[in-house]
Amino acid sequence: MRAVIPYKQENAKSRLSPVLSRTEREEFVELMLRDVVCSLREAGVKDIDILATFKYSSLSDLDVNFVIDPADLNESINKYLKKVNQPVLIIMADLPLTRPEKINDIINSEEDVVIVPGKGGGTNILFIKEPAGFSVCYYGMSFRNHCSIAKYLNCSLRIYDSFLLSTDIDEPNDIVEILLHGHGLSFEYVQNKFELESGRARVKLNCLH
Amino acid sequence: MRAVIPYKQENAKSRLSPVLSRTEREEFVELMLRDVVCSLREAGVKDIDILATFKYSSLSDLDVNFVIDPADLNESINKYLKKVNQPVLIIMADLPLTRPEKINDIINSEEDVVIVPGKGGGTNILFIKEPAGFSVCYYGMSFRNHCSIAKYLNCSLRIYDSFLLSTDIDEPNDIVEILLHGHGLSFEYVQNKFELESGRARVKLNCLH
Repeated sequence: MRAVIPYKQENAKSRLSPVLSRTEREEFVELMLRDVVCSLREAGVKDIDILATFKYSSLSDLDVNFVIDPADLNESINKYLKKVNQPVLIIMADLPLTRPEKINDIINSEEDVVIVPGKGGGTNILFIKEPAGFSVCYYGMSFRNHCSIAKYLNCSLRIYDSFLLSTDIDEPNDIVEILLHGHGLSFEYVQNKFELESGRARVKLNCLH
Repeated sequence: MRAVIPYKQENAKSRLSPVLSRTEREEFVELMLRDVVCSLREAGVKDIDILATFKYSSLSDLDVNFVIDPADLNESINKYLKKVNQPVLIIMADLPLTRPEKINDIINSEEDVVIVPGKGGGTNILFIKEPAGFSVCYYGMSFRNHCSIAKYLNCSLRIYDSFLLSTDIDEPNDIVEILLHGHGLSFEYVQNKFELESGRARVKLNCLH
């Protein structure tokens, strides 16, 4: 099997702009990606492809393979799936709460397809045992899209229930979860920039500087 | 073992007021409670206590026991824990995505204490095998509070990772998750009132009427 991580650093995570500058967001997405790669490595995943529009020289220490494609997310992943001839784990780069044991659990599933839903109808991780016939549709309610596609293809399906893996980091409130449940480089980064403010409702994020 | 569900219906869930009127919110919290009770029953939990400031006659069909206490959440639960002489599952009433197999998994844990974190630092479910010496602290970062208390008491601790159980329904966006992953009475209720609107970001909630 191999893992593929779609990645874009330039002006990434615009919905975090109320709390992080463009430069900070670009630093931060790289650290989240590094945490994801680290979890994959610890889970024993050897072949990791970064799907991007160009090769990031800043990641040359990571020992990953770059698949360069200028097409959009769906098109580039679908081209990738047609070519790759082994089980594929498609994992998003903004999942810094990923843990190796969860990855292990997913890639050792009996089912043909495993979907980890993200908050708000997204698909955070998609494991496909026979990717050649599968096509992805990431925009909109991608969780529902991917369930329907698996069903249409008569694939057995596991919906993987995990708070850690469902937490993609898109909005300032998501950073709260890194402070509470995180580890690694992204945890260190946000710990130096934010603190938690608690009241009777959900915890809030405060900027430190 | 027994389960206890703190419950308050009057003007509940004020943060849902942008999308539900007071009457609707009061209907809705009862349906969520009924879904939680149903999951507990299906998991084989026989003794269910509703902790409230008075006995709700509207729930008389549920075959649950009422524990009446005018004190606040922490004080009333701590009094309850002192008296009850068996393992206790404290579960919030706003967890309509709860499933029986998850409850089973939690109450069959080997650890002394199981904590299911909620979004934003809350504690959605707390299972305590020896409740007499334990005290709860639900306000603020209650997830951290309860981890610290378990550690202080030298209890073995399981942090239970579940997207379904971490999803407490507090804000309009949380209703999206019921539409996507829900079932039962609360699902039926919100399906008649809302629809999902999808774009490139997380799915949004639209009122139907």
